Amino acid sequence: MTRILEVREQILKENDRTARSLRERFDALGLLVIDLVSSPGAGKTELLVSTISQLSARGIRSGVIVGDLATDNDAIRLAATGAPAKQIVTGGVCHLEAAMIEACLGHFDLERLDILFIENVGNLVCPATWDLGEDQRVLLFPVTEGEDKPLKYPTLINTADMVLITKTDLSNAVDFDRDAAIGNTRAARHDIAILEVSAKSGVGLTSWVDWLCDRTQQKAV
Amino acid sequence: MTRILEVREQILKENDRTARSLRERFDALGLLVIDLVSSPGAGKTELLVSTISQLSARGIRSGVIVGDLATDNDAIRLAATGAPAKQIVTGGVCHLEAAMIEACLGHFDLERLDILFIENVGNLVCPATWDLGEDQRVLLFPVTEGEDKPLKYPTLINTADMVLITKTDLSNAVDFDRDAAIGNTRAARHDIAILEVSAKSGVGLTSWVDWLCDRTQQKAV
Repeated sequence: MTRILEVREQILKENDRTARSLRERFDALGLLVIDLVSSPGAGKTELLVSTISQLSARGIRSGVIVGDLATDNDAIRLAATGAPAKQIVTGGVCHLEAAMIEACLGHFDLERLDILFIENVGNLVCPATWDLGEDQRVLLFPVTEGEDKPLKYPTLINTADMVLITKTDLSNAVDFDRDAAIGNTRAARHDIAILEVSAKSGVGLTSWVDWLCDRTQQKAV
Repeated sequence: MTRILEVREQILKENDRTARSLRERFDALGLLVIDLVSSPGAGKTELLVSTISQLSARGIRSGVIVGDLATDNDAIRLAATGAPAKQIVTGGVCHLEAAMIEACLGHFDLERLDILFIENVGNLVCPATWDLGEDQRVLLFPVTEGEDKPLKYPTLINTADMVLITKTDLSNAVDFDRDAAIGNTRAARHDIAILEVSAKSGVGLTSWVDWLCDRTQQKAV
């Protein structure tokens, strides 16, 4: 057990070094990098499609890196927005790593982007410990997963900068207890920003896009 | 990279040994063991609560082992059924391992059980490679996660014995394309058994409980 921990620590240290170098590169470019994490089917891709269109209407240019175990379905959906999108097929690996991000940056003309979104592999556990050089890690909790997920997946919420409660159009259909969900999120991280959105109905999207625009302006060089 | 693979293979071999010894023990007892796997919030616990009650009405006695990163919420919900339930808090580990199952069997009077359910950690990736000595691995796909998950998470579906499409009461609310979901499931595993259930409305539960009863009878010594 000691040996596997040592090997794991070495790999994580190497990842942290790569992430640090990525962060310096993104900072020098004034490029905002947002890492979206959630369980499978939380609505990351659908949210990104709406978000990128609204950002584009405000003159903000997005690119997307999307991680998946096996398919390029999401990159195809995202390419329809007109934004450059690059799929990383992890081949079974349960998270993205900084070296995977570094390896695919050549696909983008980074000078011409304001925001780079990273759509992580759908997994509420393993992405927590892998720094990707992002500015903000945004954790999606769909109302369809119930109210207790912030308590049950503490590692990921502890590394996140914002919680997005998604699929709020389904709140009534699933008897979603909003107060309990927000209470559980605050119990796990009392100071974390929380926004509520529905990519389907559009409710809440303006606040989310405002939040992104503010951060883009702060980051721009 | 070679070194981490070697260490990982050793650990998996050790797990396989423990799983084999568990399977022999369960076979000698005539105890059916069902491992439920899914992403977070797919409805494993709610399904189990309904399932255990229906099995009990047919004279079949269940026990449950439930894995979670951090809370014992699910064990509390399951204990309300009257069935013995034991929580494994993995402390951040993203899957259950055979040794964790072995370590908590002392909590149960196994001679007095017909089915032992294992509710795995909510994760569509990592549980795939960890044999727990179960007879059947049942993979839950809720309609709220969309139709493409069987294609995007191939490792887990390749180790499963059955797919349960869950939360079917929400099919209309999420515009679920049933034919596409079943087509994608068959594309990933052409011969896998598929059932559709809603723990909330009760639709499909009888077929699922019938399936469990058949397997319990086949297993009994």
